[in-house]
Amino acid sequence: MTVAIYPGSFDPVTLGHLSVLKRAAQLFDELHVLVVHNPDKNARFSAPEREALLRESISELGISGRITVSSLTEGLMVEAAKRLNAHAIVKGFRTAGDIEYEIPMAQVNRDLSGIETVFLASEPGYGYVSSSLVKQVASLGGDVSSYVTKTVLSALS
Amino acid sequence: MTVAIYPGSFDPVTLGHLSVLKRAAQLFDELHVLVVHNPDKNARFSAPEREALLRESISELGISGRITVSSLTEGLMVEAAKRLNAHAIVKGFRTAGDIEYEIPMAQVNRDLSGIETVFLASEPGYGYVSSSLVKQVASLGGDVSSYVTKTVLSALS
Amino acid sequence: MTVAIYPGSFDPVTLGHLSVLKRAAQLFDELHVLVVHNPDKNARFSAPEREALLRESISELGISGRITVSSLTEGLMVEAAKRLNAHAIVKGFRTAGDIEYEIPMAQVNRDLSGIETVFLASEPGYGYVSSSLVKQVASLGGDVSSYVTKTVLSALS
Amino acid sequence: MTVAIYPGSFDPVTLGHLSVLKRAAQLFDELHVLVVHNPDKNARFSAPEREALLRESISELGISGRITVSSLTEGLMVEAAKRLNAHAIVKGFRTAGDIEYEIPMAQVNRDLSGIETVFLASEPGYGYVSSSLVKQVASLGGDVSSYVTKTVLSALS
Amino acid sequence: MTVAIYPGSFDPVTLGHLSVLKRAAQLFDELHVLVVHNPDKNARFSAPEREALLRESISELGISGRITVSSLTEGLMVEAAKRLNAHAIVKGFRTAGDIEYEIPMAQVNRDLSGIETVFLASEPGYGYVSSSLVKQVASLGGDVSSYVTKTVLSALS
Amino acid sequence: MTVAIYPGSFDPVTLGHLSVLKRAAQLFDELHVLVVHNPDKNARFSAPEREALLRESISELGISGRITVSSLTEGLMVEAAKRLNAHAIVKGFRTAGDIEYEIPMAQVNRDLSGIETVFLASEPGYGYVSSSLVKQVASLGGDVSSYVTKTVLSALS
Repeated sequence: MTVAIYPGSFDPVTLGHLSVLKRAAQLFDELHVLVVHNPDKNARFSAPEREALLRESISELGISGRITVSSLTEGLMVEAAKRLNAHAIVKGFRTAGDIEYEIPMAQVNRDLSGIETVFLASEPGYGYVSSSLVKQVASLGGDVSSYVTKTVLSALS
Repeated sequence: MTVAIYPGSFDPVTLGHLSVLKRAAQLFDELHVLVVHNPDKNARFSAPEREALLRESISELGISGRITVSSLTEGLMVEAAKRLNAHAIVKGFRTAGDIEYEIPMAQVNRDLSGIETVFLASEPGYGYVSSSLVKQVASLGGDVSSYVTKTVLSALS
Repeated sequence: MTVAIYPGSFDPVTLGHLSVLKRAAQLFDELHVLVVHNPDKNARFSAPEREALLRESISELGISGRITVSSLTEGLMVEAAKRLNAHAIVKGFRTAGDIEYEIPMAQVNRDLSGIETVFLASEPGYGYVSSSLVKQVASLGGDVSSYVTKTVLSALS
Repeated sequence: MTVAIYPGSFDPVTLGHLSVLKRAAQLFDELHVLVVHNPDKNARFSAPEREALLRESISELGISGRITVSSLTEGLMVEAAKRLNAHAIVKGFRTAGDIEYEIPMAQVNRDLSGIETVFLASEPGYGYVSSSLVKQVASLGGDVSSYVTKTVLSALS
Repeated sequence: MTVAIYPGSFDPVTLGHLSVLKRAAQLFDELHVLVVHNPDKNARFSAPEREALLRESISELGISGRITVSSLTEGLMVEAAKRLNAHAIVKGFRTAGDIEYEIPMAQVNRDLSGIETVFLASEPGYGYVSSSLVKQVASLGGDVSSYVTKTVLSALS
Repeated sequence: MTVAIYPGSFDPVTLGHLSVLKRAAQLFDELHVLVVHNPDKNARFSAPEREALLRESISELGISGRITVSSLTEGLMVEAAKRLNAHAIVKGFRTAGDIEYEIPMAQVNRDLSGIETVFLASEPGYGYVSSSLVKQVASLGGDVSSYVTKTVLSALS
């Protein structure tokens, strides 16, 4: 049985994230979605809120598979991955630039834990959607309904 | 059970390829390595020779797992992937530039077959090794023993 | 009145090209589509065939505007652009990598003619479609109907 | 008549910006330069100051065309663009990396407003000039006279 | 006699930095390592601490050559370089993305001082090591002993 | 004494190459320019012609320093570099994309010979000039006098 972890800020989850999540859930026997809270960033939602938005969005889109959602409360993400017996860390990417940023992290994570990072390309229609762009547009009154679930849309308004 | 395909020219297989192969064999229940012969390129080895070098190199390094090696003789790679009931196509990448080149192919392959491409980053020490560089250096008398197996080294000399 | 030229190989025209063409036709008062025949490349269609496929595809999609289609038969593309009194050269791009390749050409074209190059990003759904990928997939029997017009689809089969 | 908007921080305007501005003013019948104030960034000049520096720099360089300068005081930039009946948003870029950053914004802006973004490459001699580098060098006593107008040079000292 | 300067934050120095330092010390007759303190960034070590860690790490690894270590206390880095009669500024880079960020700085530094920047690629095994990643992993209790000297490892714990 | 080698196709040498050459000649005590003939490429000039154009262009621009020009007639470039007692290989680069292509070669060259590659950025005004663009424009009757010396301009016409 192959177990994967899908870590991210998910502040909030977008349709881009959910497309990656859905496809990863088909590739692995168990998928653990892990909300990582970066205290340096200005957060729009708390970790429990992000978890709830993830769970409701997964349900809203009818994504199936053995999926759990939790938060990383302390320590290294790869330590949590080891506790969950993960074989792989899933990362979505939109452009080559995203990847350039992720490669060093992936190498360090393998050094620390032996766990591989597998990269999945965004679906074309979601290639430009990011949480930060969604938050920025929503905060200025723009329509973000094409980028997030109804659940998230309500939470943002 | 999750089945993956690892397509490539492998002309010849390098230690970079074998590192991806080994790690992919741990992530998936079955891994089919597929030699794709691009008639436009000047080949150094025939498809059967590349298959043999792959099989012997896998054995030389003691890579374990349910691994098969075959060649794509005609038609689309994704058609072969469907016949093998593959859920994923594995691609190694060395730099962000490699990925940029692979993204369109990955999107088209998903359109044609529904099969996802998962990208694995090269291990740091192999990040600059490519079949074409190996062939170029070897043809000019340079030492490529750090980039290929002993099997391939013999075949090149 | 602002006149623009949209040069390309168009071997054959894709829905990605046609999306750029349609949007450029709305930004400029006159748009001259120019088929550039690169003798170094293996062509699938002759210049007159590519022109015909462009005209029929523009008509099939009902793209409106003052649009002409012709071929560059000799000399520099910017010389043709000057004869057409063009103020701008339109280039579509899919990724940052495409742009990197086009920048030197754009600078040289400005040096030679004073004509600016304006870059339009691909629409997300077409960001991975290229003539060469279309030809490759079609030649191996794959379905390219999502990437080209019906006109081009017939011509390819 | 084709109307374009040229948005930016312009904190302060550089010769790189003014080169893009001048060339855009030749491509479009009307060009609205829009100072966008990002409250997250440490600003060196207030929005009215940046407007004044833009107007005086345009005059200093003798840039002609139907050009207006104003500030975005609230809401989305594309809402301002719609109020100004803009058909195009102009963005200058220096490298492929700049573009990678701008593509998602351009796609979202088209989703929100139907307005296209057109990208103009920096002139070679200005390809490395940015407001932030100008501010950094000037604050440490370096000579920035090759990167900004005399107007801006005075304001910085 | 050719003199070079190797500027950086070195907060703290990594094995990646030390690999560049060692190789630069062989290319130039004199190498001045310059600790640049960026007040905008959250520093882990003070400038004198970083200098000490550099000196002890150079000694720990037995790096030879005419090497000095000092800090930039005020003004432009190129002014310090001129005072040291430097002919070259050395910069290490890990990926093409690093370079893209450094090019404008290199051009401005040449404008200001006539001093060239020479870029050295990271050694493959250090291509993903950065001070910020080291600090992040260490602060979360991860093992960074493969990325820094013993001297730095003690200082981090 | 530090010796460097500056290898390239130089088919023909451009002002971009000569800018790198001039700056490298100031950084190193001895600079050996090495014409590398790639038989796969369609050459415009023979190796002896390229050497002559280099020598005359160096003289035309009055570039000073201990500079030699020769051709690589057989074997690996790094073998020639070793015979010349070179400590460094000089490479100019125009964009991050150029670097991405050169990094693997640089790593392999260090593996084979212990010789470092140092990268120098193009001067901004030459950042888009390449031999291939020069040949293409010149063959179509365009004016390339801003990109090459008078010597090369005569040879091209």
